[in-house]
Amino acid sequence: MAAANNTTEETITANLKEIKKIIKAEKPLIQHITNNVTVNDCANITLNWGALPVMAPAIEESAQMVGNAAALVLNLGTISSNQFDSMLKAGRRANVLQIPIILDPVGVGATEFRNETAQKILSELKIDLIKGNKGEISFLAGKAVEVKGVESIGEYSDIGKNAGELARKLEAVVVVSSEVDLISDGSQLTEVDRGHPLLGEVVGTGCMLGSTLGVFAAVAGSSSLSLFEAAKTAVYCYSLAGEKAAEQERSPAKFKIEFMDQIYDLK
Amino acid sequence: MAAANNTTEETITANLKEIKKIIKAEKPLIQHITNNVTVNDCANITLNWGALPVMAPAIEESAQMVGNAAALVLNLGTISSNQFDSMLKAGRRANVLQIPIILDPVGVGATEFRNETAQKILSELKIDLIKGNKGEISFLAGKAVEVKGVESIGEYSDIGKNAGELARKLEAVVVVSSEVDLISDGSQLTEVDRGHPLLGEVVGTGCMLGSTLGVFAAVAGSSSLSLFEAAKTAVYCYSLAGEKAAEQERSPAKFKIEFMDQIYDLK
Amino acid sequence: MAAANNTTEETITANLKEIKKIIKAEKPLIQHITNNVTVNDCANITLNWGALPVMAPAIEESAQMVGNAAALVLNLGTISSNQFDSMLKAGRRANVLQIPIILDPVGVGATEFRNETAQKILSELKIDLIKGNKGEISFLAGKAVEVKGVESIGEYSDIGKNAGELARKLEAVVVVSSEVDLISDGSQLTEVDRGHPLLGEVVGTGCMLGSTLGVFAAVAGSSSLSLFEAAKTAVYCYSLAGEKAAEQERSPAKFKIEFMDQIYDLK
Repeated sequence: MAAANNTTEETITANLKEIKKIIKAEKPLIQHITNNVTVNDCANITLNWGALPVMAPAIEESAQMVGNAAALVLNLGTISSNQFDSMLKAGRRANVLQIPIILDPVGVGATEFRNETAQKILSELKIDLIKGNKGEISFLAGKAVEVKGVESIGEYSDIGKNAGELARKLEAVVVVSSEVDLISDGSQLTEVDRGHPLLGEVVGTGCMLGSTLGVFAAVAGSSSLSLFEAAKTAVYCYSLAGEKAAEQERSPAKFKIEFMDQIYDLK
Repeated sequence: MAAANNTTEETITANLKEIKKIIKAEKPLIQHITNNVTVNDCANITLNWGALPVMAPAIEESAQMVGNAAALVLNLGTISSNQFDSMLKAGRRANVLQIPIILDPVGVGATEFRNETAQKILSELKIDLIKGNKGEISFLAGKAVEVKGVESIGEYSDIGKNAGELARKLEAVVVVSSEVDLISDGSQLTEVDRGHPLLGEVVGTGCMLGSTLGVFAAVAGSSSLSLFEAAKTAVYCYSLAGEKAAEQERSPAKFKIEFMDQIYDLK
Repeated sequence: MAAANNTTEETITANLKEIKKIIKAEKPLIQHITNNVTVNDCANITLNWGALPVMAPAIEESAQMVGNAAALVLNLGTISSNQFDSMLKAGRRANVLQIPIILDPVGVGATEFRNETAQKILSELKIDLIKGNKGEISFLAGKAVEVKGVESIGEYSDIGKNAGELARKLEAVVVVSSEVDLISDGSQLTEVDRGHPLLGEVVGTGCMLGSTLGVFAAVAGSSSLSLFEAAKTAVYCYSLAGEKAAEQERSPAKFKIEFMDQIYDLK
């Protein structure tokens, strides 16, 4: 399976137009159980795409909130045992209702607790889309990894192969967020060589991509796009907004504000 | 009871001047037990008004912190059983000390847990001011509602009547945040037809209005204004800052920054 | 012991150059257990300095995350019993591994729970650096204080003496954040009379200084600077960035954005 970059900007533009039209019509609710570091960013980016964010982490209601939702985003950034229990309960409800689940396994590989939690989630729930950095995706694919906190370091020359293996094993779409992003559904692998290094200088751009994929997954079923194509479109547009923002601002705090507004203004 | 828009900008300006003078003299401490999505925004807007924010959610100290506070803001945005217990303890202390309590029943109507929690709070505590959207206020007034996550959808033609009923039942001031905001104390109903749609494109503007009402309620007792008039002044000024910000910025992230600075600069 | 302001901008510039070079080479991981109000700001400022932030508060992993870290920041802003247990566990691991611990005793003096928690931390853990406002530092030095929420009020004419006493008692560096900042290691006391009042108009600048001190403490051991000198350099540069930001922006929300970018741009 060779990496192929056959994404043209024309196709992406048409896909985005279709996705945005459905978002506007359906106003999908995106239920998040996520970390407390970037939760505000995730809510705002969801709203910037035109969808409705809801962050209802408590086990007393996380599953019921899924009942009105069109996607469930699970982000392990500040995972605890209590939050894991809530994720499992909400996730089971999402699986019953056939609502797509997006997993952002932040920092997996860094601690045993994170590793066990991620693996329990993957064994107990059907996950539709996983987004991680090279280290996180490689770890979930069963490879040895080097992780520093929530950052992936070291070399990952087999990352495309590993993403494909993970996608096939889980029957999920896998997004590897990196300088060149990769998207695989197990049979296809594509790359997105867009974006800007400033995206790496701001906390939360990874998490916000997770929320973005949540929005796109929420409406993919109503569109002509496969989940793989929807994910590719999301990653491409997200990276493009980063490029546009970097044309306006060169320092991270101002870049972040500009980036979020570029997402809002994407057409 | 007919809706009357007899608020003139002159009265509001005079009220604001008086309120700001008392804030400056008293530096009221506003204790919050609130959600983890917009907690930073709530703290900053409180400081922007010239008051002192404190966010002390733990049950081990939430009630003691009320002892130094001039108002208590309870926001159900990410409510859990543990947080509810802390709200109850802090709220009882506030009632004993006759410190005003502001309730922001975020997302009530969306899950049974949220509904029960809001109703327990209303039955166990004397609440002085409730701020919600049309769906939240209608639900608390005992009406059938349609809620999607934390957003109110559907038609609410009786909202003024319902706000008045709720205000009379609870002997509280009720603020309905919407395109045209309503304020009722049960005998009077007024509307504020100011503001800007961009306020709805940013996460947290509802919560920040709750904190704003907390600041105004904290000093209303030292002013010549009733709580009803203080709330009307708060809503009017808040909306006005939104209009001013929208004259400067047209995208949500930059609008939010500008809006918070407009609050700071209001005179 | 007289306060001496013998810090010249030339020395600071040289110190900063050395510190930044080590940060770039070592990419120190700064593990935080902190409040949920300013956690995003703390993560971003850490990244702005070129270090790697990680916020892993759960007791299930907080100690293991310390194993990869170069400093541990403990911030009491929204402390609970559960979070205290996690701090203790992570702190013990840090002490065993001889990783510096920075304590930000936010709001100590305001509630009994906060007081007891801070004192337990100081009796159970070896803390390397404490940063607080005048009230917090005076309280930890055993003096009577007046605190309003998390703000220090009242007069503290003996603050230099108290900081020195606390530093000697704990064998730690003590930073008093105020209009004129003080740094003491028990034998030396220096002041930094830089900065700008706008730093006090933004929520989180205190917490971000704690994270900044975490970054500097993380690399001080690899530098020619003592922890005292590293702390002085950190405080000076932080204040300088505040001055530079205030030259660009005069309202708090825009000032905050500019301030964070000034930190990023410091050379």
